[in-house]
Amino acid sequence: MARGKNQNQRSRSYDSDDHERGACEWCEYALVITLATVLLIGVSALTIFWVFYYRGGYAWADDTPDKQFNLHPTLMVAGFVTFCGFSVLLYRICRCFRRIYVKLLHAIFHALAFPCIVIGFLAVLDYHNKKGINNFYSLHSWIGFVAMGLFGLQYAVGFFSFLLLLICNKGTAGFRASLVPIHAAFGILTFVLGVAACLTGLTEKAIFALGADRYSGLVDEGIIINAIGVSMVAILGVVMYILSREKFRPAEARERLTRTSVDL
Amino acid sequence: MARGKNQNQRSRSYDSDDHERGACEWCEYALVITLATVLLIGVSALTIFWVFYYRGGYAWADDTPDKQFNLHPTLMVAGFVTFCGFSVLLYRICRCFRRIYVKLLHAIFHALAFPCIVIGFLAVLDYHNKKGINNFYSLHSWIGFVAMGLFGLQYAVGFFSFLLLLICNKGTAGFRASLVPIHAAFGILTFVLGVAACLTGLTEKAIFALGADRYSGLVDEGIIINAIGVSMVAILGVVMYILSREKFRPAEARERLTRTSVDL
Repeated sequence: MARGKNQNQRSRSYDSDDHERGACEWCEYALVITLATVLLIGVSALTIFWVFYYRGGYAWADDTPDKQFNLHPTLMVAGFVTFCGFSVLLYRICRCFRRIYVKLLHAIFHALAFPCIVIGFLAVLDYHNKKGINNFYSLHSWIGFVAMGLFGLQYAVGFFSFLLLLICNKGTAGFRASLVPIHAAFGILTFVLGVAACLTGLTEKAIFALGADRYSGLVDEGIIINAIGVSMVAILGVVMYILSREKFRPAEARERLTRTSVDL
Repeated sequence: MARGKNQNQRSRSYDSDDHERGACEWCEYALVITLATVLLIGVSALTIFWVFYYRGGYAWADDTPDKQFNLHPTLMVAGFVTFCGFSVLLYRICRCFRRIYVKLLHAIFHALAFPCIVIGFLAVLDYHNKKGINNFYSLHSWIGFVAMGLFGLQYAVGFFSFLLLLICNKGTAGFRASLVPIHAAFGILTFVLGVAACLTGLTEKAIFALGADRYSGLVDEGIIINAIGVSMVAILGVVMYILSREKFRPAEARERLTRTSVDL
């Protein structure tokens, strides 16, 4: 389809054009980006604060398995929430660079999440083995396992698609476009499952570390753990809001939406 | 905009028309609906089985608070997952009826969820008071509180919008169309938070009821509780997949998407 035809179609399909953004829309755009950035960095910062202030910091040695465990929540929150969150949002709302650079940044943020998730997983596996605790018995571990599997699969599909783009852009355009809605839907699912794994993990940790009596007594540490969870809920809210705002999407991606009916 | 113009635009925007669905697409449509129905009914059936087989059934009396508590997970799973899930999917994929009847069914399924959530909430509140346990101390309760608040708000907005449709259809079309993407995004968020509240609640219950040792020993009840949680994860997967499949959306709703750039 010729570009002129698309341009014409787009200007009929959308109320305002890219060049005619109002001050109000820019304010909303800036506000949402700021809120998302504060929450995504804040949730990792709060987790690190919790570990240092209440859980004795980090280590990886045979005589301090509890400090080794602390790497697990920190790295999983950084990987599944902070880095994956930035990667998803960046892909959806970044208008500053050409599309190819946005895809590259999307891959880089996921590449940063990858070692966090792997080391975070190894930390808890080794902790369980040192303490003689069974692996994969809890709902948290089952959800985490599914989330990690989906993350790996999505990364492989994304990497393969990006490689195809570099090798043969035009010839693979149709195939890559058909992958987009599936990749996007399962990407959001992976993110939601990553958050669900973190929330169930925080619940487990709060009960194991504080005990039912202290946790129900609303001690400071319990409130901090709950605050980490609520920050993730707020992140889910901001992400859903951004996905619902068609106008936040870069113009090029919106054109593709009109052509191929890509939804998420 | 004239209807003929839309029709023209739609036939250019989408690869296949509504009247030209292939057998393969119908198979996928039927398979996804069957899978969603089995999972949505299955998760409530499994919860009821768990309560009767392992937790002694239901009651609402002063001398059996534990049996009263059992109403809480059952009704919350029925309300937030089964009824809300059917309501969301029905709205998105039902092609059998006129749009107004689909909206009515959407409201009815949410109306069925409403008493489940209220009674489920009162059951646990009364249980806590009888046992002398603090209310709203855990991450589960905080997430559940946000999910209930969003559910109430969404129901009020949906009801108000539906009422406007009945009173003055044409005059309020623009206002109602502008509500749709926000209502859809926060609807999905409410559903995801409902599932997250259920998952953290199941984690809590598994640890409190079985204790860390029996739970980590992979006893039968622990596996049943995990299976309830994993069913919810599968439901999230099916819902995300359905949201990503533009072709599952009824033709009328797809036309509106092209006109007003509604996304979710």
